[in-house]
Amino acid sequence: MTISPLQQARYGYTPKLPKMLRAGFDGIAVEEGAATEAASDKEKIQALFPNTYGMKEVYFKEGANTAEKKKHIVGVILSGGQAPGGHNVIAGLYDALKSANEENILLGFKGGPSGILEDNYITLTKETIDKYRNTGGFDMIGSGRTKLETEEQFEVAAAVAAKHEMTALVIIGGDDSNTNAAVLAEYFKAHNTGVQVIGCPKTIDGDLKNDDIETSFGFDTATKTYSELIGNIERDAGSAKKYWHFIKLMGRSASHIALECALRTRPNICLISEEVEKKAMGLNAIADYIADSVCSRASLGYNYGIVVVPEGLIEFVPEVKKLIEEINETLAKHGERFTKLPTWDEKLGFLTAALSVESMKVFNLLPMDIQEQLLMDRDPHGNVQVSRIETEKLLSNIVRNRLQQRKQQGNYNGKFSPLHHFFGYEGRAAFPSNFDADYCYSLGYTAFLLISYGYTGYLSTVRNLAKGVEDWKAGGMPITKMMDMERRGGEDKPVIKKALVDLEGKPFKYFEAHREKWARESCYTYPGAIQYFGPSELADETSMTLRMENDEF
Amino acid sequence: MTISPLQQARYGYTPKLPKMLRAGFDGIAVEEGAATEAASDKEKIQALFPNTYGMKEVYFKEGANTAEKKKHIVGVILSGGQAPGGHNVIAGLYDALKSANEENILLGFKGGPSGILEDNYITLTKETIDKYRNTGGFDMIGSGRTKLETEEQFEVAAAVAAKHEMTALVIIGGDDSNTNAAVLAEYFKAHNTGVQVIGCPKTIDGDLKNDDIETSFGFDTATKTYSELIGNIERDAGSAKKYWHFIKLMGRSASHIALECALRTRPNICLISEEVEKKAMGLNAIADYIADSVCSRASLGYNYGIVVVPEGLIEFVPEVKKLIEEINETLAKHGERFTKLPTWDEKLGFLTAALSVESMKVFNLLPMDIQEQLLMDRDPHGNVQVSRIETEKLLSNIVRNRLQQRKQQGNYNGKFSPLHHFFGYEGRAAFPSNFDADYCYSLGYTAFLLISYGYTGYLSTVRNLAKGVEDWKAGGMPITKMMDMERRGGEDKPVIKKALVDLEGKPFKYFEAHREKWARESCYTYPGAIQYFGPSELADETSMTLRMENDEF
Repeated sequence: MTISPLQQARYGYTPKLPKMLRAGFDGIAVEEGAATEAASDKEKIQALFPNTYGMKEVYFKEGANTAEKKKHIVGVILSGGQAPGGHNVIAGLYDALKSANEENILLGFKGGPSGILEDNYITLTKETIDKYRNTGGFDMIGSGRTKLETEEQFEVAAAVAAKHEMTALVIIGGDDSNTNAAVLAEYFKAHNTGVQVIGCPKTIDGDLKNDDIETSFGFDTATKTYSELIGNIERDAGSAKKYWHFIKLMGRSASHIALECALRTRPNICLISEEVEKKAMGLNAIADYIADSVCSRASLGYNYGIVVVPEGLIEFVPEVKKLIEEINETLAKHGERFTKLPTWDEKLGFLTAALSVESMKVFNLLPMDIQEQLLMDRDPHGNVQVSRIETEKLLSNIVRNRLQQRKQQGNYNGKFSPLHHFFGYEGRAAFPSNFDADYCYSLGYTAFLLISYGYTGYLSTVRNLAKGVEDWKAGGMPITKMMDMERRGGEDKPVIKKALVDLEGKPFKYFEAHREKWARESCYTYPGAIQYFGPSELADETSMTLRMENDEF
Repeated sequence: MTISPLQQARYGYTPKLPKMLRAGFDGIAVEEGAATEAASDKEKIQALFPNTYGMKEVYFKEGANTAEKKKHIVGVILSGGQAPGGHNVIAGLYDALKSANEENILLGFKGGPSGILEDNYITLTKETIDKYRNTGGFDMIGSGRTKLETEEQFEVAAAVAAKHEMTALVIIGGDDSNTNAAVLAEYFKAHNTGVQVIGCPKTIDGDLKNDDIETSFGFDTATKTYSELIGNIERDAGSAKKYWHFIKLMGRSASHIALECALRTRPNICLISEEVEKKAMGLNAIADYIADSVCSRASLGYNYGIVVVPEGLIEFVPEVKKLIEEINETLAKHGERFTKLPTWDEKLGFLTAALSVESMKVFNLLPMDIQEQLLMDRDPHGNVQVSRIETEKLLSNIVRNRLQQRKQQGNYNGKFSPLHHFFGYEGRAAFPSNFDADYCYSLGYTAFLLISYGYTGYLSTVRNLAKGVEDWKAGGMPITKMMDMERRGGEDKPVIKKALVDLEGKPFKYFEAHREKWARESCYTYPGAIQYFGPSELADETSMTLRMENDEF
């Protein structure tokens, strides 16, 4: 491996800890708050977590450490998609664990949750950890998407933990992984395994967020990376003055990424899936909304602009949702016959017969490559892979059609030349920003504090994040406090509620108050590349979303 | 306009000048070297430039300034695509001009070369300049693609220059624009207009390079931006371990961008158009070359990887070139009839009859969306818009077919899941790196020195760039020295030769010596985001290409 100059420089970065943790492991005391209750469906959740329900909130503070002095053997798992800072969670965990007792051991289970099921691990050493400090990616131990959720899996995990004489397991993941961490904690406790489970909130999507989690890690770095690119494209568009750029960003269920990037870069248009769903905006309404901006800018002489959309958008558009369902159903029944049809026109004929008239109308609106994507790229369950659909092209196509109509009616006289982008993989493994580097290191450090003080079924929490690091507050929250019951796959399940964009929240309200002006004028802002050095107001600032939600903007 | 924290911080950056220019305008003397000759076709070029041929090379040095003290009114034009640093050329020019004489005036012609033809300009003030220092984009005065090349245009330009009592015009552009700058300089001199013309070497493509131009500005920043993204994707790929990323980069005629990014990030595969052309590699050879890497990595358990290709690649693949020519010809003749064919299958039937058997075979290899692109997106001359063709998808498709064959033959047993990216607009308007900020400012400053010392038909040159800024050498070179005669549009024309990737040069040789290992193993390097602050070896380092070409790597 060749080390780039930035990687070399980042090795020299010491993540900042909250002031309350700076006294060192022996100088950190614990304080308990009130007992907690589930977010809703309290009785049902209490019944499902008889051993771990109703535990108290936990805070750390300066003071004599009263944790039981025993040797800890801790396992750690990275679960799901990459998010910048994952390596720093492990580094913080490792440093706390070793500062408590040099004989403590940290095991890294490889390739995600399947690592513990297959007993596939490495013992993490200083040498390994040092190679990954303040770097992006999850490649130190790898990640994976296996879900730890069945009784059989828990038994295997317990056996592996017992074999290694493990005292605790730290799971770094999103809402599903932390839900499963709580269920596993309950299982371990119920079966007297002596193994504690602690979760850490990870996801670039920003949808693992609630009263106790101000932001998930990785969101800051990923959105800064996408905002760099959007800003660069804005500046290019305003210089070349000839393209409309349609930019799709990751974010399937929630649109936090798109909203944050819009707040940073002020594009002409940003669509928010939550709003599209709430207003039941169809393709026509969306096409008109964008075309209105194109037309009003054209009338000012600006035949260029920027449209930002979240990846998941089209699943929230009523008639597209219906079309996708009908195609899924048709291909589930007749897939083999359909695939054998030798020509494209025969396939179209088949579809025309099989789909509803309205859905076929929608289908015919789509550009040919997207029609193909809807029919060809299917996941193992036979469903359309929505993330593969080039929503950005679909939108520019319906806008183009709309503009042609307006031109014929004499209501538009501009030029419309669209270009398309999708940003996602570019940001998931970036070097963590100072914010994410500090936040993640603190989360990992706090996770070990929770372990040492004997807690299980807790999420490591670091709060007051919109303030300077010295004022951050580290602690722990019972995962069951964040839960309610939801219908998933035909069953009622306890889950951590996914945080969608709050249409009444301050970030969206700010966007809503400004977007009319942004749509017409060029209010572009150019954030540029993430800076790890330089003035603190540049290198240490965090997301607009977090700052606005905490009245720091 | 809202100013981002980085933009605010960059306003505070003072570009570094070469030591020889640090004494201030009054302390800079000139020295002339030997008379120059054209690169080849000397007599023909001398005949075309009777008034500006054979001038002497010029160097600047510390010493008493002996330039004639007169008031200067200088015009400046940005020509062609955006390149980071353009604003700094103008800032350097402005600062030198004002430090020579507060009464000097700088006019910015708007929207590219057409600005002088339409007499569309603004008078540049400190207030305007200060808003654009160290920022990306060309939006201070805009750019455009009009070519200044006809006698009629020259007459208009001369009239506009006379109207403003201009003493000089600075043209910031690529090889064509600087060629035209030389022709315009000759015209102005022949017609005794008293207007000097100075060129500045701009292009992110890096193909304006020769004995006298070590690199064009913008190349450094653009390739750093693309390398950031490629590195992030590499790290993501190595963490997720499930995708092959096909990444297309700008660079139509030359592959300097792809090569530089490959040197920085060490992807598994990087194709260089110059090599593909030289070896007459067809699609089959390319598919096999990539598939070999996929298979050898799969045998090591790595079902992921990175393929980098230049935008212009397929124009260098013999059979695709032929296919495109045949399609262009067919549609030129029968376009209207073809467009009216109601179904895709009828269009295919038409093509089958019209194209050669071999070309139809190539056409059938292509995925449907690329077939559509070849048939639909045409420029005003009826030609395929090659840059719109998703070469990255074309390649992954032929590789997939090849892998299926190998699987059937029992020679491959991996998984192949491709993802696609195109990076170009993301880098053209980025905040200039310290290198480009310093280089551009020095180019602009030097351009005014050339003007003040009375030179015309010169390119502003800053050399010794692989060393620290203090050792850079500023001067000027007659543009005719860089010229030879080429056949363009059926005529012999004097042009600055485009610099293609030299397959015998050090950057390519280094790549060639390492690529076999990179293809099999994961030698990824993660450059991360451009840093404007921090340690000098990080923030001030320049491109690998430049360093290797000058033995500084």
